[in-house]
Amino acid sequence: MAGVEIEKLVQLLAKLPGLGPRSARRAALTMLKRRDTIMIPLAEAIETAAQAVRNCTICGNLDTEEPCNICREPHRDSQIICVVEEVADLWALERSGAFRGRYHVLGGTLSPFQGVGPQDLSIDALVSRAREAQVTEVILALNATVEGQTTGHFIAEQLIDAEVKVTYLAHGVPMGGELDYLDDGTLTAALKARR
Amino acid sequence: MAGVEIEKLVQLLAKLPGLGPRSARRAALTMLKRRDTIMIPLAEAIETAAQAVRNCTICGNLDTEEPCNICREPHRDSQIICVVEEVADLWALERSGAFRGRYHVLGGTLSPFQGVGPQDLSIDALVSRAREAQVTEVILALNATVEGQTTGHFIAEQLIDAEVKVTYLAHGVPMGGELDYLDDGTLTAALKARR
Repeated sequence: MAGVEIEKLVQLLAKLPGLGPRSARRAALTMLKRRDTIMIPLAEAIETAAQAVRNCTICGNLDTEEPCNICREPHRDSQIICVVEEVADLWALERSGAFRGRYHVLGGTLSPFQGVGPQDLSIDALVSRAREAQVTEVILALNATVEGQTTGHFIAEQLIDAEVKVTYLAHGVPMGGELDYLDDGTLTAALKARR
Repeated sequence: MAGVEIEKLVQLLAKLPGLGPRSARRAALTMLKRRDTIMIPLAEAIETAAQAVRNCTICGNLDTEEPCNICREPHRDSQIICVVEEVADLWALERSGAFRGRYHVLGGTLSPFQGVGPQDLSIDALVSRAREAQVTEVILALNATVEGQTTGHFIAEQLIDAEVKVTYLAHGVPMGGELDYLDDGTLTAALKARR
């Protein structure tokens, strides 16, 4: 009903996570209603980011500078490497402000069914980093899913002869969580690890 | 934590309807992961649409051609004008395939509290169109909200001396709707208008 230009825009927007065909149409209409404040600045921001942002060759984080701001930061603890699946997880940990070491982004998890093997993830690079003299601990901050845990065990095996401590995130009751709504696995873990 | 380029991109994405700060970050990361298939085509699609798409000067619909494809279409019934608040409503009606006349997009609803008066909407243009010789009916297909209904009554008053029939969409039970979940107003309307 609208021109091909709008249809094309809606189709591309619908590929973003969180946007279906209907919300993509709403987003396109909002843009067209607010061309100067949203639409044109957004096109420019996407283009700029696409050209300027690169994955850090050390840790895999996204930044415009190489190495990234976290790898460059002199006051962070270089003894600890926190391994995450995706850049989004790194951002989540940074928002919490609870970690002041270095990161390593795997770029996904092992998934034999989807053909994702160790060579498709940044595992070799992690193993080399973990064997550097100053590194004493590798935190496997992977999702508490089957894939995340399998990948964690695989990495731990690769590091079995390296002189580093391999640790995992604790399982337990989320802050504000109600016991009644928690699954049995989490409750069991929280009970076992009681303080 | 990421460069200003990413922050800027996330901020602009978060202004789109349906995207909050968290989903805007996820959308930005998805783009950066799929630069060639989503990110760069999307920037180009936004730019192209921003330049090419215009509001039709007759009905207010969005299209790259002037007048729009609906106003140009020779087989549509020029006797009936369907008045809608936004282009999204026009698209919804077109998807239904139930209407083969012409449209008129108001561009919003009257809202004294937000300072939206008749001069801010495309009401004068509608009144002129409705007074053209061939027009016999104006359908006020406005949202069933206080603002939509107020705007409808205002337009109906403007057309009181024009030789057109002014009609409204029927209220009733939505297809697939369950009576138990319907509000009293809708139930009363459906009962009164029983067939």
